[in-house]
Amino acid sequence: MVVRAIWLCLLMLMTAGQAHAEDGYELWLRYRPVQSAVDLPQRVVLYDESPTGRAAASELQRGLSAMTGRTVSIDSPVKRGIAMNEDPAEARKKQIVLSRNAQPDPTLGAEGYHIETGAVENHVLVTRISANRDIGLLYGAFAYLRQVQTGQPVRDTTDAPRLKLRLLNHWDNLDGTVERGYAGSSLWDWWRLPDLKSPRYVDYARANASIGINGTVLNNVNARAESLTSPYIVKAAALADTFRPYGIRVYLSVRFSAPIELGGLKTADPLDPAVRAWWKAKADEIYAQIPDFGGFLVKANSEGQPGPQDYHRTHADGANMLAAALGDRGTVMWRAFVYKGEVAEDRHKQAYNEFTPLDGTFAPNVLVQVKNGAIDFQPREPFHPLFGAMPKTPLMMEFQITKEYLGFATHLAYLGQYYEETLSADTFERGQKGRTVAQVISGMAGVANIGTDRNWSGSNFDQANWYAFGRLAWNPHASARDIATEWARMTFTTDARFVRPVVDMMMRSRETVADYMTPLGLHHLMATGHHYGPGPWVDNLSRPDWNPVYYHKADKDGIGFDRTAKGSGALSQYDPLAQAAWANPQSMDERYLLWFHHLSWDYKTRSGRPLWDELVLTYDRGARDAAALQDIWAKMQPYIDAERFEAVSANLRIQAREAKGWRDASIAYFQSKSGRALPAGVAPPDHSLDYYKSLKFPFAPGI
Amino acid sequence: MVVRAIWLCLLMLMTAGQAHAEDGYELWLRYRPVQSAVDLPQRVVLYDESPTGRAAASELQRGLSAMTGRTVSIDSPVKRGIAMNEDPAEARKKQIVLSRNAQPDPTLGAEGYHIETGAVENHVLVTRISANRDIGLLYGAFAYLRQVQTGQPVRDTTDAPRLKLRLLNHWDNLDGTVERGYAGSSLWDWWRLPDLKSPRYVDYARANASIGINGTVLNNVNARAESLTSPYIVKAAALADTFRPYGIRVYLSVRFSAPIELGGLKTADPLDPAVRAWWKAKADEIYAQIPDFGGFLVKANSEGQPGPQDYHRTHADGANMLAAALGDRGTVMWRAFVYKGEVAEDRHKQAYNEFTPLDGTFAPNVLVQVKNGAIDFQPREPFHPLFGAMPKTPLMMEFQITKEYLGFATHLAYLGQYYEETLSADTFERGQKGRTVAQVISGMAGVANIGTDRNWSGSNFDQANWYAFGRLAWNPHASARDIATEWARMTFTTDARFVRPVVDMMMRSRETVADYMTPLGLHHLMATGHHYGPGPWVDNLSRPDWNPVYYHKADKDGIGFDRTAKGSGALSQYDPLAQAAWANPQSMDERYLLWFHHLSWDYKTRSGRPLWDELVLTYDRGARDAAALQDIWAKMQPYIDAERFEAVSANLRIQAREAKGWRDASIAYFQSKSGRALPAGVAPPDHSLDYYKSLKFPFAPGI
Repeated sequence: MVVRAIWLCLLMLMTAGQAHAEDGYELWLRYRPVQSAVDLPQRVVLYDESPTGRAAASELQRGLSAMTGRTVSIDSPVKRGIAMNEDPAEARKKQIVLSRNAQPDPTLGAEGYHIETGAVENHVLVTRISANRDIGLLYGAFAYLRQVQTGQPVRDTTDAPRLKLRLLNHWDNLDGTVERGYAGSSLWDWWRLPDLKSPRYVDYARANASIGINGTVLNNVNARAESLTSPYIVKAAALADTFRPYGIRVYLSVRFSAPIELGGLKTADPLDPAVRAWWKAKADEIYAQIPDFGGFLVKANSEGQPGPQDYHRTHADGANMLAAALGDRGTVMWRAFVYKGEVAEDRHKQAYNEFTPLDGTFAPNVLVQVKNGAIDFQPREPFHPLFGAMPKTPLMMEFQITKEYLGFATHLAYLGQYYEETLSADTFERGQKGRTVAQVISGMAGVANIGTDRNWSGSNFDQANWYAFGRLAWNPHASARDIATEWARMTFTTDARFVRPVVDMMMRSRETVADYMTPLGLHHLMATGHHYGPGPWVDNLSRPDWNPVYYHKADKDGIGFDRTAKGSGALSQYDPLAQAAWANPQSMDERYLLWFHHLSWDYKTRSGRPLWDELVLTYDRGARDAAALQDIWAKMQPYIDAERFEAVSANLRIQAREAKGWRDASIAYFQSKSGRALPAGVAPPDHSLDYYKSLKFPFAPGI
Repeated sequence: MVVRAIWLCLLMLMTAGQAHAEDGYELWLRYRPVQSAVDLPQRVVLYDESPTGRAAASELQRGLSAMTGRTVSIDSPVKRGIAMNEDPAEARKKQIVLSRNAQPDPTLGAEGYHIETGAVENHVLVTRISANRDIGLLYGAFAYLRQVQTGQPVRDTTDAPRLKLRLLNHWDNLDGTVERGYAGSSLWDWWRLPDLKSPRYVDYARANASIGINGTVLNNVNARAESLTSPYIVKAAALADTFRPYGIRVYLSVRFSAPIELGGLKTADPLDPAVRAWWKAKADEIYAQIPDFGGFLVKANSEGQPGPQDYHRTHADGANMLAAALGDRGTVMWRAFVYKGEVAEDRHKQAYNEFTPLDGTFAPNVLVQVKNGAIDFQPREPFHPLFGAMPKTPLMMEFQITKEYLGFATHLAYLGQYYEETLSADTFERGQKGRTVAQVISGMAGVANIGTDRNWSGSNFDQANWYAFGRLAWNPHASARDIATEWARMTFTTDARFVRPVVDMMMRSRETVADYMTPLGLHHLMATGHHYGPGPWVDNLSRPDWNPVYYHKADKDGIGFDRTAKGSGALSQYDPLAQAAWANPQSMDERYLLWFHHLSWDYKTRSGRPLWDELVLTYDRGARDAAALQDIWAKMQPYIDAERFEAVSANLRIQAREAKGWRDASIAYFQSKSGRALPAGVAPPDHSLDYYKSLKFPFAPGI
């Protein structure tokens, strides 16, 4: 009998195991068996019958079953009459209880939770997750599971998000392509929605809820009007229905000229009554289908998109018109990434110049969404000067999770460290010390790195960037290293022989990319279109500020973009206390050096070496560090599965080769400008500059 | 101890089961536990240490382990010294032996196999799979597993493929999109090849080998020259390396003008010595990377593609030039799908007119690849008149597996029944009876329906079309119903309560699509670009033969395309004996009626009803039959998993709605021509003709 049971069990195991590839699909929600299994609850008692409450109980059941190997039940006290006439054996099982507070706990707000373990009923140890609202129960359930997954003892915990808006921005097109997407196609099967609701949509919602994401903009900021037609609203509603139990609201990017394209109006002037009526009616139509619709994201008057300035109105006029259409039902996120072809001004300065005069004029349900830096998601940028400069306007941080300028999904670059660097930077808003970027923002948006690739993000390590974004949106003061540690433990193994070196490697990884792509504050050196390989020589694009040469200004004498008062003056857009950190090349963090200063090749850097030598050595270090990642990773083989080990190895092989390519092409080019010899011991590039210029990257993804 | 073992087992089971979704990824290779488990071998003995032999043994191990729940070993007699000093307990395990014949068996050819079961050694029942070459062992292994999977007793079997070339044609672009693809993006991650070899490539090869596919054309027939550059050849070689153990050779579609675009030549004239030298050098470069490279597929002088006629040369000149470049190393498949904008001739006739004069002039390693019908993969077409008309030229059949004109991946249409219809049609080649299409072809190509969708084909039932294509390419005389039965048993369940109704539903499904899209021999009624929804009214395209009105010619008096001698005369391209089947509307199969005849609305059909009534009733029946599929499927719920049940249900819901749309739009349009009343009892369309004309299908996939 027992033998038969084992046989059957093995049979099922082998059958199940057959399809069980370590392909990364499970992300950080892997729920593998844990050592603490016997101490864990075997019973989930749910005092909240909302769809969200059920999702929380179901996740606990899924996680605890898998991690303990025991059957875990979900009991509804209302239905089962707990503590009344229940089977005593049942009642003695360790329990985890989910219940909403009868009296709201003000420390928890709408989304917070409290986890507490203590003896409560029948001498049984009960862990209780409580919250003011059902979504807090779900967040609490994930927090509890995370503690178990990472091998920590379950601690009493109280937590609530610091930011109200924690959003993904999908740059997904309606035809299924993803702009700057390196993880396959769009997850949204618009063609077969609303009928076909992929089970993957639920897993998407689970993953996001597990890190606290509470909204998703479904479509590209370079929006098509069609996304606002009735059929597409019904399709979006089907996604909203799927996401709702997980606390995720749906938002749409809108095309400002939609009243013309869809409504047949002659204008999209935001002050025109017919335009205002059209948007109001459109918002009403959306809310009829999606009662908790989040709102609109708008890219206007930027890179060819229509906007209020087409009618000589301001950004505030445009944003406030849409805000009025939504009313108190939703939010407008108006992007500050604007720059004009006709303006000769340093692009660094344009958003600040356009938006600071509008501070205080936006409707209450408008946020201005500002990229982390003033150029465009470079491997390193100083924080955007708008942070700290719009005290009367709620600001939304826009980070890029997808790695447009950091080697796509191929190169390893842990962005948690980048986000932390920006969030912890002090804006000195109105001269106050300690007004970090984290303090001055009201929400965080991340340009998603998610697609149909089986591993969601195009590579295993890029999952960490999605994870880190969510955790930092929940708490922008959290530590990037702690988050990386947590992620590695959940995603791979809790074995310290793996976790320690891998976290070290992650924390260093983005510096390495900056070293071999854009060292010492250089920026925008990528080749045209794909933004992947090096193109420091590019000087033929129609707009000066699309050309790398505009940004590095290298010649026989020196290199760098002077943004001091002697140059473009962009530095003056920062608070004087913030300026101080970057004003003096001698005392500043040299990782931003050439962002703000144009310096002679002979300029003596902190190391005592001339700038030329320092630049070359930094490129060289970047390439060597990239190659060294392979050695570190090779030692990790014993601790993880073969499939993910191989996938990461292949990416690191590509990265090492391409980092060398970046180093060689860049040194060859800058040497053609400086005319100087390489520092002693530095190997010359493998090929001539002409060779590197001749390289093509056809059919690059994400364009 | 035992309890602990069970506990551990359950723990592992739950963990494994968590990730085990019935998402269709396993295709027909699901290997679920079978009742005959105890009778099956527990040991694979491999007498062939080639990579293909190892793949065969490994597949047997995988399949038998999963189906029996027992550990199945692979033993190499050379290494283990079987029958010498082996553990007697080991030796008594039931065995399956894989060995190559010492003396070639002429009945098996290069790819055939023999399966035989009989007591051989130590009184142990041994099943032996033998073949002349290693690939036969792999095909035999899959055939053996298929017998077990479908719940049949394992019979002694001898089998070999009837066709030498059994190819998939991927219309995959280098940017990852797939022309006429409805299953996600291209499987080939060109961007990260050759470094990143997805484990999915192996599963692709396994699936194809299991049905006998032995070649794959990686890129779209509308080819880009870049696919012949050195980096892309290296990428293709990485795929070829992965596929090689599975007997799958890699082919490339080539752009005829590549010598100009890549080689800097001024011409691509096939008789120009420099052009010939360029192609020879290119072929040599490919063979240096891919020693078993299969050859070239060419779309030339068709729909804007360059070709030999640009230089006043013939198709034979072009094909023979490429054949010379390949030499005896490979094959040229030259497509006969050609038609010219400047030619006013019925498009039906053009390929025949161009190619029959060239019969006998092609090099021995050229095949002419002919679509199943003369127009373009319509829901029903008579066989192409070139079949039977090129006795001195080997012909390759080109079927479409992807359902460009049959409702994409959404509508259920089992194409096995379509392929069988074409293959079994008698061409009466040179007046001989019994010269079916199956008899006159030398190979079969199927335009793949495979993409990155988790279920490979965009829907569960579309997997059956891939499967049926492969099985019919192996044996074009096989029964589509038998193949459907086999597929359903392997893919879902052997339970007859499921298999019987589902196979019936499959066998009827394509007739249903033809009924609601293109009844009674009508064709090319789809709207512009997407080929999905109805567009019988379209008359505004630049070329007459791109417009549906060109094909149906409906007016107040009648409908249909007269291809008799009174009309375009296309019927005369068939052998007189074949013509007889279609020449007389009164005696012919009415499913082809309006393909060949233009008839009055009053024409009396076989049913006794006037043509107008018959047409409307056929549309009506199609829509009703499509709706009825949902009821049949609903009864299948008890027999299969929820995930695939729901996915199919959603597709059937869409199909029923859209079949109704096809019916309504088509009836509304043709009624606007005929001006006649609907037959008694037939419901009028829900909306006006203008409504149907106004419908748009933006962002349709696959364009």
